[in-house]
Amino acid sequence: MRRAVILAGGSGTRLWPASRQARPKQLLALGGGETLLAATARRLRAAAPDVMIVTAAEHAGACAAEVPAATVVAEPLPRNTAAALGLAAVHAAHRDADAVLGAFPADHHVADEVGFGVAIERAWGAAERGDVIATIGVVPTRAETGFGYLELGGDRAELGDGVRTVARFVEKPEPATAAGFAAGGRHLWNAGMFFVRARRLLAEIERWMPATGDGLREIADALRGGGDEAAARATAAVYPRLPSVSIDHGVMEHAADVVAVPGAFGWSDVGSWQAVAALVPAGERGHAAVGDAVVVDAAGNLTYTDDGVIALVGVSNLAVVRAGDAVLVVPLDRAQDVKAVVAALAAGGRQRYL
Amino acid sequence: MRRAVILAGGSGTRLWPASRQARPKQLLALGGGETLLAATARRLRAAAPDVMIVTAAEHAGACAAEVPAATVVAEPLPRNTAAALGLAAVHAAHRDADAVLGAFPADHHVADEVGFGVAIERAWGAAERGDVIATIGVVPTRAETGFGYLELGGDRAELGDGVRTVARFVEKPEPATAAGFAAGGRHLWNAGMFFVRARRLLAEIERWMPATGDGLREIADALRGGGDEAAARATAAVYPRLPSVSIDHGVMEHAADVVAVPGAFGWSDVGSWQAVAALVPAGERGHAAVGDAVVVDAAGNLTYTDDGVIALVGVSNLAVVRAGDAVLVVPLDRAQDVKAVVAALAAGGRQRYL
Repeated sequence: MRRAVILAGGSGTRLWPASRQARPKQLLALGGGETLLAATARRLRAAAPDVMIVTAAEHAGACAAEVPAATVVAEPLPRNTAAALGLAAVHAAHRDADAVLGAFPADHHVADEVGFGVAIERAWGAAERGDVIATIGVVPTRAETGFGYLELGGDRAELGDGVRTVARFVEKPEPATAAGFAAGGRHLWNAGMFFVRARRLLAEIERWMPATGDGLREIADALRGGGDEAAARATAAVYPRLPSVSIDHGVMEHAADVVAVPGAFGWSDVGSWQAVAALVPAGERGHAAVGDAVVVDAAGNLTYTDDGVIALVGVSNLAVVRAGDAVLVVPLDRAQDVKAVVAALAAGGRQRYL
Repeated sequence: MRRAVILAGGSGTRLWPASRQARPKQLLALGGGETLLAATARRLRAAAPDVMIVTAAEHAGACAAEVPAATVVAEPLPRNTAAALGLAAVHAAHRDADAVLGAFPADHHVADEVGFGVAIERAWGAAERGDVIATIGVVPTRAETGFGYLELGGDRAELGDGVRTVARFVEKPEPATAAGFAAGGRHLWNAGMFFVRARRLLAEIERWMPATGDGLREIADALRGGGDEAAARATAAVYPRLPSVSIDHGVMEHAADVVAVPGAFGWSDVGSWQAVAALVPAGERGHAAVGDAVVVDAAGNLTYTDDGVIALVGVSNLAVVRAGDAVLVVPLDRAQDVKAVVAALAAGGRQRYL
């Protein structure tokens, strides 16, 4: 049976001050409505009956509140996506030896939900029909240097419409390379979505990441012998010694039979305030506002506030964010530099703002 | 005896969102320390034993808390400075028929307090020695078009060092005229400080503003007959029918024997966020901060917050203000346009932010 896994371990700093250690990005309603996590779960409802959320122990309660129907698996500390997805696979395989996982980041946005539904149905179907690891690659819409890419190989049409072999995984490219990728039609953005039998994933981890494989087997044994509580104790014991490696680097780049379904569904990783500005419907004079705003002789700005009002006079192309006890002002095209603020706060011992 | 009168009836909108109807500018600690009102009272302590504050009824409690030693006289509604100073004169003359008032706006800043002390001592002395109305004119430091000017006439050295006749009051000038004033040495900024016997002031009001004079006489009669409570009742009855006129227009421009003492003591009317920026000591890279701030690759900005932190990345010459439930972002050189925000909020029915 299909089982959706939402990887909600992120603690992104690029959306500070809205995103904080106590309330990471996936728990934010960046468009003003549902949280990114709730939207992610909602988008999976039609394709998979069961949803599992893997998240940090301190966010388990908030995740359960956002998605009451989900099973929440808590990680005692962050060990990147290979460990998180492996842990999910252990729990899924325990309940259903034939479970076919579909793994999704908790904090992305999809504009075209029909397109998303078609793509995940194809990818999940491919993982069910063949003993393959399927992924969805997003058709590039710009020469992006901030993402990894999938390079497409030959057709695997026997697994479904549009399914292609992944020839290789490509690291974040230089600008010239990215421009070639965007124009060439053979490269897709790696959006971190994977579809694979739980059993197959655990076998791949054992092969390519033996230390992680050993740890996961300990957890699986505890789960079989003593149920969820024994598994939680084993997880607490095992996790500190697991390497912190992404599933991409740890497994996908080495595995055989990785296939991809191209998708073009208005995907965004919501990786900066500039990305948020692109999602929020722009109102009067190109102004995108989450929360109350007053704009006088100002254009092309984003305002985001969780309380009260933000007033702008005579400024353009800025992100102005108020969240809790902090205010941020940054040009939209420098939104990546917000991490320097977080670093400065951490260096200055101002932990209360992080 | 000298009696200082602090005119605290202002409700300026140019320092929104820090300045609100419920907490006008004089009740703000714009430099992060004492409020403008408390600083005004402190600066008068050495020159005059008694301080009276005239303010709106709804701010009487806050003013008394700021300056516990002061007598607070409440106005039932705002009627500009002629009525406020006349009301103060009625109360002062009732206690001391020979009282010599020194009237001061509550919301100005003085950088050179020694210079201020010298100037008020000269002006108060002139009003005591002669039957004149004395004022302090601030020596212009720029071609300011936002203030009225005093044009100096001949010497009145018999009244004290530097005392000059005021030939006339000049309205806010055009830029070319202002440039001539700044260069010429014969014009001073009208800073709204006046020194005059209470008795003489009331006589001038009766002469030039007979309706106001009649109203003030009613209040004086009530005070004589029934004390402060009767005076308050009379004030409530009289005030609505008083014209709303400044003491400058109503009296000073018409009166004979107006003299001025030039002063150069780092005076500011703190009339905008740009003026605040000039008062706050600039720290690292020209950044002026009231409250906590983090600045990354940004220069020449003012941040002001009453809570939490303001973070700036890659912006320059902005005022970024957080006060209560509102955030404002405006280039410092457009700080005068903040009144457009206040107008937009009022027009939009968003009274809670005003």
